[in-house]
Amino acid sequence: MASTHLPPASPAPAGTANVAIDLGDRSYDILIGEGLLDDPTTFAGLPKSTKALIVTNTTVGPLYTEKLRAAIAPLHKQVLDIELPDGEQYKDWPALNQVFTRLLEEAADRKTVLYALGGGVIGDMTGFAAACYMRGVPFVQVPTTLLAQVDSSVGGKTAINHPAGKNMIGAFYQPQRVVCDMSTLDTLPQRELLAGLAEVIKYGPIADAAFLGWLEDNLDALLARDRQALKYAVQRSCQIKAWVVGQDEKEAGLRAILNYGHTFGHAIEAGLGYGEWLHGEAVGCGMVMAADLSARLGLIDTATADRIIALIKRAGLPTRGPDLGADRYIELMQVDKKAEGGETRFVVIGPLGQAGMRGAPDALVRDVIATHTR
Amino acid sequence: MASTHLPPASPAPAGTANVAIDLGDRSYDILIGEGLLDDPTTFAGLPKSTKALIVTNTTVGPLYTEKLRAAIAPLHKQVLDIELPDGEQYKDWPALNQVFTRLLEEAADRKTVLYALGGGVIGDMTGFAAACYMRGVPFVQVPTTLLAQVDSSVGGKTAINHPAGKNMIGAFYQPQRVVCDMSTLDTLPQRELLAGLAEVIKYGPIADAAFLGWLEDNLDALLARDRQALKYAVQRSCQIKAWVVGQDEKEAGLRAILNYGHTFGHAIEAGLGYGEWLHGEAVGCGMVMAADLSARLGLIDTATADRIIALIKRAGLPTRGPDLGADRYIELMQVDKKAEGGETRFVVIGPLGQAGMRGAPDALVRDVIATHTR
Repeated sequence: MASTHLPPASPAPAGTANVAIDLGDRSYDILIGEGLLDDPTTFAGLPKSTKALIVTNTTVGPLYTEKLRAAIAPLHKQVLDIELPDGEQYKDWPALNQVFTRLLEEAADRKTVLYALGGGVIGDMTGFAAACYMRGVPFVQVPTTLLAQVDSSVGGKTAINHPAGKNMIGAFYQPQRVVCDMSTLDTLPQRELLAGLAEVIKYGPIADAAFLGWLEDNLDALLARDRQALKYAVQRSCQIKAWVVGQDEKEAGLRAILNYGHTFGHAIEAGLGYGEWLHGEAVGCGMVMAADLSARLGLIDTATADRIIALIKRAGLPTRGPDLGADRYIELMQVDKKAEGGETRFVVIGPLGQAGMRGAPDALVRDVIATHTR
Repeated sequence: MASTHLPPASPAPAGTANVAIDLGDRSYDILIGEGLLDDPTTFAGLPKSTKALIVTNTTVGPLYTEKLRAAIAPLHKQVLDIELPDGEQYKDWPALNQVFTRLLEEAADRKTVLYALGGGVIGDMTGFAAACYMRGVPFVQVPTTLLAQVDSSVGGKTAINHPAGKNMIGAFYQPQRVVCDMSTLDTLPQRELLAGLAEVIKYGPIADAAFLGWLEDNLDALLARDRQALKYAVQRSCQIKAWVVGQDEKEAGLRAILNYGHTFGHAIEAGLGYGEWLHGEAVGCGMVMAADLSARLGLIDTATADRIIALIKRAGLPTRGPDLGADRYIELMQVDKKAEGGETRFVVIGPLGQAGMRGAPDALVRDVIATHTR
């Protein structure tokens, strides 16, 4: 795949970092800092409107809705909020429709701004609600989980799940701004922090071998929630994602590498029922499988695959998938969005720091599944 | 509103007419002719794929699905079809979700092409399904009603209804091609032909006074289904729509004039319950009210309003709305997508052949409603 070079890493600034997503008239900034939610200047320059709606969930809402409401008060005459149930199993049409119903009950017009306050589920659903309400209203991402800060809130992928497949119904729809307030990670359960680290680790093998080395050196600091380490991890992850998305907004090619570990991971999530494993946990285990597949395809050596797998294990992520049977894994992977003409295509690594897409012989895939399931 | 000049009218060619929609990398052609559905060359150059899905309804499907299937067979390995229930009351999430479920059951990938075979409801739903399935797959409009040919299939507005508002959930998403086969109008019930004429008549007052004159001269031929007259009406309507949409794809300004008659019309449809009146009937009556409102605002003289109203009446369209009470009309119009900050905005005419958007004093609106309801 033709691509420009990844911008070099730079140390995190003392204050707020700014990563630009360059998409022409859909460009926007990612702000990464501390205490951003308490500060109206964080939201300066965003669209003003009569009404705004904060979409959050029952876990995050009680912690941060009032802070956000105060910070955006200068922009809107009325700031409404709605709390959806918390969890991947609610990333569905009934929950999305609650947002539409609320907007219509409040006679919200098409200048209404939506704010996504929460993790990946809230971000994906709020973005899709914004894409569809009156055929499109502005929205702002305020991700409060590590996973959402480094991955789902950036790049404009929005969706809900269908009982037959994850993220099958959605849109490419870009936010006006992404606000990553590192302070919100203080309230994140450790299990969710680890799930977020899976998406951070992802960026090393697919795009930046040096970042993989940095993660190996700094994993203990990240697990101990060292603020400066977390801030750098979010900043570098967003830089890499911005570089990929800026070249391929709608996943015609390069962008698919961001799905490293996701094909196996989606099969785990769908096979167990959404919500059993966290998305990041499934991706962590999926990256183990995809690293092994890359080695079996001869794209990286076994030592490199083992290095990736060791880091995932050190991060406390699951490295063995549930025993669904190889047939079920393969069946579930065939409805993956990257499949074409019935052939499942995998994101593979090789050499370290570069990724590509390819199909794989059925027998190899079965070997990988057998090796890495209980 | 700043705008380039409307291209001059040209006579309909003997064969197939071609109207280009110029939207950069989302440009496409509208083909207008006879026997297009039977002819594989109609579809030449469209995306090839493993699977395609014809989305139609229980009325249109039995008449045309097999013809379309034969014509597009060279492009796809497998052409599936799904018949949805017929009617505006089924333009909702459960029907849309039937399309998603079918696609997922068939493991349809993201190169799958959807074909919308039917009227405005099928076109709007299929377009929205294409916009959302795996975040976007290609689709082709094959409108089989006059209304869909001159209006809803052109310009990329897609949507479903919400119980609290018509077309509230949707997307701007452009088709790959629009195929208007005049032969399909042979099977169109007269009531639906008249409803389609409402949207044809619309283009005169808002954009082309000369076309209004042509319609006055040729209405009898149109009502008698003269093929050449119908073909010219469709061609000129599409030219005007293409000119408007080419300047304002996402309705930031000018495009709103295409909603002439629709603010009052939506109130009629929503107030009676969708499906009671046909959309075109409600628009016809809405244009009567909006013409009168334009005159009461001093934007056109009474004689001009009467001229528009007379043509709508001659076309056999309703000119008096249901007696919902002025309060209910006003309440229903406040959730119209053109409303801003709670103020309902109307498309008004003045001078004849030009339109604009504005609010209106409550008392004037109430007078208009009182005058034109039973």
